[in-house]
Amino acid sequence: MDLVKELEQRFHRDIVLTQHMGLAVETYNENGLTLSAPLEKNLNHKQTAFGGSLNCLVTLAGWGMVYVLLREMDIDAHIIIQESKISYLKPVTEDFQAICPKPDDAMLHKFKKMLQKKRLGRIPLHCVIYEEDTLAVEFRGSYVATVTT
Amino acid sequence: MDLVKELEQRFHRDIVLTQHMGLAVETYNENGLTLSAPLEKNLNHKQTAFGGSLNCLVTLAGWGMVYVLLREMDIDAHIIIQESKISYLKPVTEDFQAICPKPDDAMLHKFKKMLQKKRLGRIPLHCVIYEEDTLAVEFRGSYVATVTT
Repeated sequence: MDLVKELEQRFHRDIVLTQHMGLAVETYNENGLTLSAPLEKNLNHKQTAFGGSLNCLVTLAGWGMVYVLLREMDIDAHIIIQESKISYLKPVTEDFQAICPKPDDAMLHKFKKMLQKKRLGRIPLHCVIYEEDTLAVEFRGSYVATVTT
Repeated sequence: MDLVKELEQRFHRDIVLTQHMGLAVETYNENGLTLSAPLEKNLNHKQTAFGGSLNCLVTLAGWGMVYVLLREMDIDAHIIIQESKISYLKPVTEDFQAICPKPDDAMLHKFKKMLQKKRLGRIPLHCVIYEEDTLAVEFRGSYVATVTT
């Protein structure tokens, strides 16, 4: 099973709310990890996307990025989010995608070293939601992975 | 209809995801506004509360606080969240409550003045989730209200 399908199944199985949100894992490639959700299931009182849903999607884009990185490194670990910061820059009026670009090599190297030496790695990630060409949501989260085997 | 019931109905009507989360508005009094959600509907892969759900509840506790403040001031306004910061300090393993304490008088006065003068008010709010006596989630959000009438 490919990683994209595996990650989507994990989200849907482990976090029931992601089913209600209509979350899908779209792609994982050199541009990073992309998740999506339909506007219709995530509406607020102004018929735009609910801030809580936008935050969920970027939070999970970051979580998912750590998940695929660990799979590529062949390391079993628990992943949690420690803290995050989000700016809602403009209302989202369409189905939306959260993108988490892959961290650069130096960051990946540092993360892997920490996991190997201390069995615990911390990694800061930056996720975004665009509407057409405009940045609508900017998110920075700090994730911690704890090796389990 | 009292304010607590009114706010809960608004959440459930306007943001369908709050129904899936089992969100309830518990109380509004001198201690602030308290929302709740059952663990069972908000589980993650570790059988604790999903970070996205915790973030939703504190985000809405802040939103709800602005809502009740505006009702008390008899001002009609749109409310949006502009940015927020959250720390997940410990896993939440039970049904949880998000508390937004009422801002102090100086802050309320400043907010009201802005709304009256500029028809737009900005207010920073601090929300928390405790598990027993331990702080589990700390949240700071900045909300903007735009007068509509």
